[in-house]
Amino acid sequence: MNTLLLDALHCKNLSRPPIWVMRQAGRYMVDYRALRAKYSFLEMVHNPELAAQVTLLPVKQLGVDAAILFSDILVLLEPMGLKLRFDEGTGPHIENPLKNAKCLERLHDPDISHSLSYVGQAIQAVLPELNIPLLGFSGAPFTLASYMIEGKSSRDLRKTKQWMFEDPDSFHLLLNIIANHTIKYLTLQVEAGAQALQIFDSWANYLGHAQFREFSLAYLKMIVDAMRPKGVPIILFCRGSSVFGPELASVQPAGISLDWNCNIAAMQSKIPSGIAVQGNLDPDVLYAPQHVIKKEVLGLLDSMRGNPGYIFNLGHGVLPDIPFDNVKFLVDTVKCYKSTL
Amino acid sequence: MNTLLLDALHCKNLSRPPIWVMRQAGRYMVDYRALRAKYSFLEMVHNPELAAQVTLLPVKQLGVDAAILFSDILVLLEPMGLKLRFDEGTGPHIENPLKNAKCLERLHDPDISHSLSYVGQAIQAVLPELNIPLLGFSGAPFTLASYMIEGKSSRDLRKTKQWMFEDPDSFHLLLNIIANHTIKYLTLQVEAGAQALQIFDSWANYLGHAQFREFSLAYLKMIVDAMRPKGVPIILFCRGSSVFGPELASVQPAGISLDWNCNIAAMQSKIPSGIAVQGNLDPDVLYAPQHVIKKEVLGLLDSMRGNPGYIFNLGHGVLPDIPFDNVKFLVDTVKCYKSTL
Repeated sequence: MNTLLLDALHCKNLSRPPIWVMRQAGRYMVDYRALRAKYSFLEMVHNPELAAQVTLLPVKQLGVDAAILFSDILVLLEPMGLKLRFDEGTGPHIENPLKNAKCLERLHDPDISHSLSYVGQAIQAVLPELNIPLLGFSGAPFTLASYMIEGKSSRDLRKTKQWMFEDPDSFHLLLNIIANHTIKYLTLQVEAGAQALQIFDSWANYLGHAQFREFSLAYLKMIVDAMRPKGVPIILFCRGSSVFGPELASVQPAGISLDWNCNIAAMQSKIPSGIAVQGNLDPDVLYAPQHVIKKEVLGLLDSMRGNPGYIFNLGHGVLPDIPFDNVKFLVDTVKCYKSTL
Repeated sequence: MNTLLLDALHCKNLSRPPIWVMRQAGRYMVDYRALRAKYSFLEMVHNPELAAQVTLLPVKQLGVDAAILFSDILVLLEPMGLKLRFDEGTGPHIENPLKNAKCLERLHDPDISHSLSYVGQAIQAVLPELNIPLLGFSGAPFTLASYMIEGKSSRDLRKTKQWMFEDPDSFHLLLNIIANHTIKYLTLQVEAGAQALQIFDSWANYLGHAQFREFSLAYLKMIVDAMRPKGVPIILFCRGSSVFGPELASVQPAGISLDWNCNIAAMQSKIPSGIAVQGNLDPDVLYAPQHVIKKEVLGLLDSMRGNPGYIFNLGHGVLPDIPFDNVKFLVDTVKCYKSTL
């Protein structure tokens, strides 16, 4: 069993840093595209055998140090009564997005353990195939609320922020509802066997500092606190973490995942010891020739050399048109770093 | 003469903070829309009388403490040989964007003082009407290069960053060319009478920390150093300034303008004294009811109370669908703050 990720999350890794890659199972892989030609994105997510198969693609083809369940942060919205669609090229669409406090009445109060049982089944299907840790994940309440209100990816989160500023009470109510479902959803994943969890607050970077604390961080804390007794390490990811890193660390997750604006070594000096840091290569570096990739990767590794709580990752997900060979080269470069210590 | 802005830029303002608003002459104003119904955006920018008239709209209607010349960061691209178009709703378009190093050969080497003389004329036309300082401005080399390569606003700057990572030498060449023209352009504005300058690096937030230093900051420094003998204070603005603020301050501008991710008081403690800070209200706050606007604005003002180098502004430009009355309310709230000291 390769325990590098878990060792790093406990800040006790004395070997080379572990590497996994956000969105490591994705369109940049030939075999993924072949499966997507046969099945829709949601069919793959809903079917435990297919989800397990896709989860294993980067494990087999890249040799990463952690698997992350193939799924999507938006699946939690389906049992809440929202209809999801993934269109090629334009990303997710949610029918009848929420418009105001009145819309909260049409949200269902689902039995998560039943309605998302296929996620647990996918975890159970993939576990016997792994000799590395399996990460489960969820969206963060603020990011999920944004999707529920915008209905899709947004350039400005205007509707979400209008609601937030005009009617903060009902916005808090929505965040509370989502946070409670999220706790049940993450519990389901842990009970199925997930050995670590990552929570994605992808849109937190749209928030001012005070609003981040009130509308994002408070719910991350609620989830981290509720999950702590389960003993499974949690990594908090948000865009904007180059600014919000110290606040993320203040809710005492096992680790924080950083975007690429900050110098990661400087960030670690601003957070308490005992909290791991993950990141933060600019995903666009993978467009570059391999000698540039190598220089950037080694620069990052050197800056974190000897750090027992460092996990190599991109600052955000790998992009669909990145050459597969460059992702493989990235993973190999990190894995070879051991020998240069 | 109201010198609050200049006093604050010298960190010597003992009165209430000055306020101006990025994009303060814009579509949220009835009179602006009436002019735009008669003239295209570029007609208004190219015509010194019209540009002067638009510059004065927010001075008369809002009572701000500084005027900023009505123009656009992209006008510098026209004498360089690129054709600009502004379409309603979709923003700027540049015909035949640059694709690679070979495209640099088709850039013109213009006489800026001649080809952008209409900007100087607009400054001279507006100055006699003002009893507040007039800000000139330019785009930063990295942001202008991004527009030249992407051809429009972009969600990811993918082409720009591909070029940057694949062929940094020719990307530096492009940045150098732009920086040299920018110095001439800002000199023209100072000679025409601009009393302060702001440089906008709107897309710097797409860069990792090391790339920000190499491809953005180095050229901001080149411009600030070249302009220093003119004695006109320069404000550096970038998105991502909540992370990059200390680096922006390191090139010793008169002030830095902050986006809304950071706590501005905390940021000021990280930069040397003697450098003013400007910002950083979330522009979306102006969608909120006025009691919320008041609370947010007073919170910001209180956090900077007594600071002789603080300039109130938004973290980014005012949006086109913001109610005019809310912008007026914002300005009045800041101007009334004096009496509560």
